[in-house]
Amino acid sequence: MQNTAIYPGSFDPITCGHLDIIERGSKIFQNLIVAVMTNPSKQPFFTVEERLNMIKKAVVHISNIEVVKFNGLLVDLARAKNANIIIKGLRAVSDFEYELQMALMNKKLDTNIETLFMMTNSNYSYLSSSIVKEVASYGGCIADIVPKNVVRRMDEKYKE
Amino acid sequence: MQNTAIYPGSFDPITCGHLDIIERGSKIFQNLIVAVMTNPSKQPFFTVEERLNMIKKAVVHISNIEVVKFNGLLVDLARAKNANIIIKGLRAVSDFEYELQMALMNKKLDTNIETLFMMTNSNYSYLSSSIVKEVASYGGCIADIVPKNVVRRMDEKYKE
Amino acid sequence: MQNTAIYPGSFDPITCGHLDIIERGSKIFQNLIVAVMTNPSKQPFFTVEERLNMIKKAVVHISNIEVVKFNGLLVDLARAKNANIIIKGLRAVSDFEYELQMALMNKKLDTNIETLFMMTNSNYSYLSSSIVKEVASYGGCIADIVPKNVVRRMDEKYKE
Amino acid sequence: MQNTAIYPGSFDPITCGHLDIIERGSKIFQNLIVAVMTNPSKQPFFTVEERLNMIKKAVVHISNIEVVKFNGLLVDLARAKNANIIIKGLRAVSDFEYELQMALMNKKLDTNIETLFMMTNSNYSYLSSSIVKEVASYGGCIADIVPKNVVRRMDEKYKE
Amino acid sequence: MQNTAIYPGSFDPITCGHLDIIERGSKIFQNLIVAVMTNPSKQPFFTVEERLNMIKKAVVHISNIEVVKFNGLLVDLARAKNANIIIKGLRAVSDFEYELQMALMNKKLDTNIETLFMMTNSNYSYLSSSIVKEVASYGGCIADIVPKNVVRRMDEKYKE
Amino acid sequence: MQNTAIYPGSFDPITCGHLDIIERGSKIFQNLIVAVMTNPSKQPFFTVEERLNMIKKAVVHISNIEVVKFNGLLVDLARAKNANIIIKGLRAVSDFEYELQMALMNKKLDTNIETLFMMTNSNYSYLSSSIVKEVASYGGCIADIVPKNVVRRMDEKYKE
Repeated sequence: MQNTAIYPGSFDPITCGHLDIIERGSKIFQNLIVAVMTNPSKQPFFTVEERLNMIKKAVVHISNIEVVKFNGLLVDLARAKNANIIIKGLRAVSDFEYELQMALMNKKLDTNIETLFMMTNSNYSYLSSSIVKEVASYGGCIADIVPKNVVRRMDEKYKE
Repeated sequence: MQNTAIYPGSFDPITCGHLDIIERGSKIFQNLIVAVMTNPSKQPFFTVEERLNMIKKAVVHISNIEVVKFNGLLVDLARAKNANIIIKGLRAVSDFEYELQMALMNKKLDTNIETLFMMTNSNYSYLSSSIVKEVASYGGCIADIVPKNVVRRMDEKYKE
Repeated sequence: MQNTAIYPGSFDPITCGHLDIIERGSKIFQNLIVAVMTNPSKQPFFTVEERLNMIKKAVVHISNIEVVKFNGLLVDLARAKNANIIIKGLRAVSDFEYELQMALMNKKLDTNIETLFMMTNSNYSYLSSSIVKEVASYGGCIADIVPKNVVRRMDEKYKE
Repeated sequence: MQNTAIYPGSFDPITCGHLDIIERGSKIFQNLIVAVMTNPSKQPFFTVEERLNMIKKAVVHISNIEVVKFNGLLVDLARAKNANIIIKGLRAVSDFEYELQMALMNKKLDTNIETLFMMTNSNYSYLSSSIVKEVASYGGCIADIVPKNVVRRMDEKYKE
Repeated sequence: MQNTAIYPGSFDPITCGHLDIIERGSKIFQNLIVAVMTNPSKQPFFTVEERLNMIKKAVVHISNIEVVKFNGLLVDLARAKNANIIIKGLRAVSDFEYELQMALMNKKLDTNIETLFMMTNSNYSYLSSSIVKEVASYGGCIADIVPKNVVRRMDEKYKE
Repeated sequence: MQNTAIYPGSFDPITCGHLDIIERGSKIFQNLIVAVMTNPSKQPFFTVEERLNMIKKAVVHISNIEVVKFNGLLVDLARAKNANIIIKGLRAVSDFEYELQMALMNKKLDTNIETLFMMTNSNYSYLSSSIVKEVASYGGCIADIVPKNVVRRMDEKYKE
């Protein structure tokens, strides 16, 4: 059984919580595609190219992985990539409800695509890209909560 | 990548919601083990043998499946069966919190075992073994919500 | 449009929270049936007759009301009484999830019966029959949280 | 007992989930008023006139219904229309909490107005106007999840 | 044991729910600091100076209190003020999850700072600054839900 | 300001999660009373004396602490001990709702007693006395999740 899984998100920026899901997912699925979703109506902190680069550097030790950008319906990306699985991390109840709705909608759009939820490592249950940006913007330490190359990029960004 | 997944539960009795998770799980994982957990401190409606039989009849169309009974720590069963994955269905927020705690505990007991959550089909979001027994006990129709052989067994049970 | 609504519960005993729902419901629906559900597998604090009597005394000022005991499927009671509505009070998220499941199951058993939820008055959001019994068992004051006749009956019960 | 119920929302656009609540509500209440709330601070996808028209076409088979636009406090609309009931659909826990707060606030503003919650049909539990717009914007099929006339209007809108 | 607690918020404007937490907190902690957080990316209804003034007038009867404005990481304010405690009011599940994440993040940034949660008085469980502004904007009565001086200021603001 | 706080529970047995709350609480409040609640209707795993002993050994390094057993209303214990605060740990949403109801009830029984919630350390968010007993009963390792003396006592108990 050949499983290709997509792990979608905006990754603005990638956190240690995301990376933990990626590492665990890459051990279960033959191929893992990290999809950086671009949303034309939202102004991101990092450009999509910057986000792709930060992820690529953070996952350089994983071989069965591909990092792509995407703008559209997740099920269309899944079909294009021959993927049969979407994975999502769950931290809290509020995540859960939104993700359940998206999973049901995606199931309706394509019944062959399964959404699997992984629980977030309890060390990172408080973590989100927004909190990372808030802490960093006030000079707080983010060394333990984002990959190393992201710490550096955040520093540079605030000096720009 | 060879994945063996365990789907644990008390299945007292198996419902269409359970069967839906089993069918979807068997398409993703090379081997699927349905584990009927026996809990010495709870008095079940069906004996463990009855529960095993009802499941076996309901999954006769699936080839990569094994149905076992088990009394112990799930991680011990996983090690004995060389399984690396536990799957659980999620219906509602209350499920989610309990299952998240179990998943974190199991991760602590064995970091190599991953818990993956599948959302319950929205047609069965109201369904549980307890509700099946309550409806059946008052003569309500359960034909759409449990496998056929279970309808018959529930009837017989109430005539005993 | 003639609406008959059933308000089911175990009412062991009736609280001011229940009474508030009953009073508000009786203003909206032509007929209101308070159904004391008896559950053979649970040992109640008050007998079903005691519970019926306490409710009857508490609702003596309401005319379009009937108080009955019932053991069975709610949809069967609804059909027997020509009722088209079930009402339930909601206090908290945990209530909500269980009640949503019951409402979906009842809808499946009879699509003509509608479940309507009323929010509990915020003064009574902490109230349940269990908390009443716990407080009363240790001699705490329950005068504000149950109807007057119930205060007296609880006193007598503890003296028995 | 004469009940007039208001079903408020932004309906941008109306979905099959909304329509299901409207159809069920119209069977219980003598008069049903669908109130399209206009919020000057939010930029809608459809103008209020477009939204009114789509609803009117979708409810043409229901006789005891009125579709209005409104900008103000719901309790003021209720008084103006002699309505005693507000109905709201509940899908998930996050809905529930927000709606409970609104219901308590409205109760405070006018104690004679009752909020009644109806559960969303489980087939539509994943549905919201936002998801409809997201799916449609990427060319996904929305034929099963919005009324027919809305499918057509969405198509036209994207061609504008 | 000398405890200094910070009660942070945007207080746009202060409500009776906030005031209740402040009064209860001032009885437990030696010093209480109300911190008006300013968020450069959000456009407030009242300026930070107006918000400070309204709070100061509302807490004039409390002696062990200080009202400050702040823009930065809460743990930095805590260190600067020698505070060891952050207090937050909890109304609902959605509050709870967000606040739990913030509390865990703050704990990570400084393990010596403890977050303590107080439950909101059930009379104010429906209350938020947003609801106050919505009600007031349509001419609804807010006399029972905000301090007196805020009623007056809201009136003046809408006349500007 | 002199604060005496009660930390109530059944502690059957005490876990590292409980101990973490106790240690953090003892740094904030002048006196901390750990109250082992005895519930005549529930059969505990350890006797109340065993539970008291295990807690006393685990908190021997803390000076401003008292460990007592109690059977009754918490507000009565608070009055008898001159305590003005109840502390509770929060792990998850389900905890939150029950604890909020208890806090509101206790506030009603005695307005001078404040309930303060502390979040559970994220390392212990999966932990409960029930899970400890379940894991230990199957021979799983509990060394990281209960105090040392409890590991030994659980071992002895299972050999009895």
